[in-house]
Amino acid sequence: MDINAYMREVGSEARSASRLIAKADTGVKNKALIATAEAIDAAREELMAANAKDLESGRANGLDAALLDRLELTPARIDAMIKGLHQVAALPDPVGEITGLNYRPSGIQVGKMRVPLGVVGIIYESRPNVTVEAASLCLKSGNATILRGGSEAIHSNQAIAACIENGLKTAGLPASVVQVIKTTDRAAVGELITMPDYVDVIVPRGGKGLIERISREARVPVIKHLDGVCHVFIDRDADLNKALTIAVNSKTQRYGTCNTMETLLVDAPVAATILPQLAQAYAEKGVELRGCERTREILPQALSAVEADWSEEYLAPILAIKVVENLDEAIAHINHYGSHHTDAIVTESYSKGRRFLTEVDSSSVMINASTRFADGFEYGLGAEIGISTDKIHARGPVGLEGLTSQKYVVLGDGHIRQ
Amino acid sequence: MDINAYMREVGSEARSASRLIAKADTGVKNKALIATAEAIDAAREELMAANAKDLESGRANGLDAALLDRLELTPARIDAMIKGLHQVAALPDPVGEITGLNYRPSGIQVGKMRVPLGVVGIIYESRPNVTVEAASLCLKSGNATILRGGSEAIHSNQAIAACIENGLKTAGLPASVVQVIKTTDRAAVGELITMPDYVDVIVPRGGKGLIERISREARVPVIKHLDGVCHVFIDRDADLNKALTIAVNSKTQRYGTCNTMETLLVDAPVAATILPQLAQAYAEKGVELRGCERTREILPQALSAVEADWSEEYLAPILAIKVVENLDEAIAHINHYGSHHTDAIVTESYSKGRRFLTEVDSSSVMINASTRFADGFEYGLGAEIGISTDKIHARGPVGLEGLTSQKYVVLGDGHIRQ
Repeated sequence: MDINAYMREVGSEARSASRLIAKADTGVKNKALIATAEAIDAAREELMAANAKDLESGRANGLDAALLDRLELTPARIDAMIKGLHQVAALPDPVGEITGLNYRPSGIQVGKMRVPLGVVGIIYESRPNVTVEAASLCLKSGNATILRGGSEAIHSNQAIAACIENGLKTAGLPASVVQVIKTTDRAAVGELITMPDYVDVIVPRGGKGLIERISREARVPVIKHLDGVCHVFIDRDADLNKALTIAVNSKTQRYGTCNTMETLLVDAPVAATILPQLAQAYAEKGVELRGCERTREILPQALSAVEADWSEEYLAPILAIKVVENLDEAIAHINHYGSHHTDAIVTESYSKGRRFLTEVDSSSVMINASTRFADGFEYGLGAEIGISTDKIHARGPVGLEGLTSQKYVVLGDGHIRQ
Repeated sequence: MDINAYMREVGSEARSASRLIAKADTGVKNKALIATAEAIDAAREELMAANAKDLESGRANGLDAALLDRLELTPARIDAMIKGLHQVAALPDPVGEITGLNYRPSGIQVGKMRVPLGVVGIIYESRPNVTVEAASLCLKSGNATILRGGSEAIHSNQAIAACIENGLKTAGLPASVVQVIKTTDRAAVGELITMPDYVDVIVPRGGKGLIERISREARVPVIKHLDGVCHVFIDRDADLNKALTIAVNSKTQRYGTCNTMETLLVDAPVAATILPQLAQAYAEKGVELRGCERTREILPQALSAVEADWSEEYLAPILAIKVVENLDEAIAHINHYGSHHTDAIVTESYSKGRRFLTEVDSSSVMINASTRFADGFEYGLGAEIGISTDKIHARGPVGLEGLTSQKYVVLGDGHIRQ
């Protein structure tokens, strides 16, 4: 197979399809989403059979248990895909919204119209339900999509692709609106991220290694975050009960997510009071603590943190703890060691809360709330294609709006420039 | 001089300065802008003397008349720089605006806060007034700036840099908030566009060659447009008086600007009526016409257009004209040959105007208005750092808002995720 020729064919078809889907009525797009849900419901057996093939080769190839778990399509996960499609269909259509249409002194009216980005490339690993999630968000936002899943999920993804194709067909849309790459050849990824004529943006979902490689080699914009080194800072003016609850929830509600706290910062004057209580709560959950020297004076049972701990995303029951001199040191630490993902302060001080919101340079900044809230559903976006820690285009959880752009519209009545 | 070390030093200082300027009060930023205006007014003689040096070496190096004209600082151009600084000081500060702060079912409040991008790199040619324009917009939007002007303007730019430094000092801000590169070594550009640790975005202003090179080699996002192949489409339902006025103004109000019409599309049923009138108007202005075969049946005096004419940005009194079968062909032509900059339809038809707005994939789309309106001042942005034809981040004229991003803010009262 000539991968370059195949991918350019896919890209060219996606570009053509993007013109069609960009102007498709909301009703047509919703029809395609609902019909896809129905096709998936009708194809449960085929999906499970295709998935069984992937699981079998996965086991034969020695995939670890976590990967196999993510790869598996259970009846409950199929239910969730169907539900997700109905949810996206129910979201408001972002395309075509005109805002700020005002008269200018020249007499023209100028406003902005929300428009699709064009062609979105999605690169992801193992979880086959991403195929449906990503395709549905791109479709609703009027984009054509090229999906490149992991080779370990190829049968599952192709079976899901058939359902999406059915859904598109029912709504009178061409299959090229959502294309799932048919080859497992890794060269396809290299092509996909270097076709600026055909692809407007890449959204990678997966491990840090994959995303770093894509960011380095891409010739098109990438919406991404590399990791989530999230902080909670317990200020001296914190309500210590809120601090305790938030610090425990931010770390232990789930360990493997990017919005989980990885480093706890504690203001010096309250360290001796709160750290022992926290240590007890963490001990009950089995969280390993790695502290700075001042932390270890209070908690001798903590391991000694090394420099690398301050920028580590553990994704595990491990927590780094540092006692800081004041808010200034906390902010400086977060901006230096953090990953600009999500950081929270616990304080009752108006002035310090205000400073934290302004000065912490992260995609989500919080006062008195758990970092675990940082996601598209909790923020009310309805769904999420990913989280961006970049500043260009989209920052924080990215929903339908992040998959669109805005163009200027000008309405005149024969107006010319003097 | 070790350019790599010098540029990394500049970058590192800009990154530190960006933290300071990001949290600076609006009053402080305005004070720096006004004090810079005063410093420029007080330094008129020094500016003219420095500029005279540049002009002298420019002449010695055989720069053409157009370049020398752009390079020259006249008393009127110095007045304009001063006026521009006062205008930017008077614009609303975009930083810190919180929008959409709403309660979520969990009890948290979620909104978006507008924040600076960080460090903006500006690369430009000849016109020294860009130094002040760009620096003032970046300063007002809370960004640190690294400016890299053309080597032919080095003395003028350094003299202006001294005035900006004075202005920053008066407001108590460090000089590193606005740094003008001191070397004319071309390697400095290569470094500036490949320091993602220190630079958040590059805005190149200049010829297509410069911008293409920067886009190809940059390792940071670039806000840009390559060229402006703008169209006016005269629909069969146009008011022919409006069509005449708009088609003449779009081409002839200024020839060298990116929003000037380069190709005129005429709907077949009205071609025989309107083209002779237009040809007469263009002849009076000395505009050379290059037409398709159908155009030349009506206007035998027109030269024969070749394929390359449809994607040419003449920036000169030359116009390509094509007769098209209908609106579909016009839209397809614009999306295929255009540069996604600015395109207008002249029509009285509601349905066709609506379709044109939706389906033309350009950063500005217009009904019954001259393409020459596409700029930041005419759109009410107050000023313009450039125009973007990309879809990511900013599209169309880019003002203060385009130099900012939005982060999520979450306000809780001890809320945790269940």
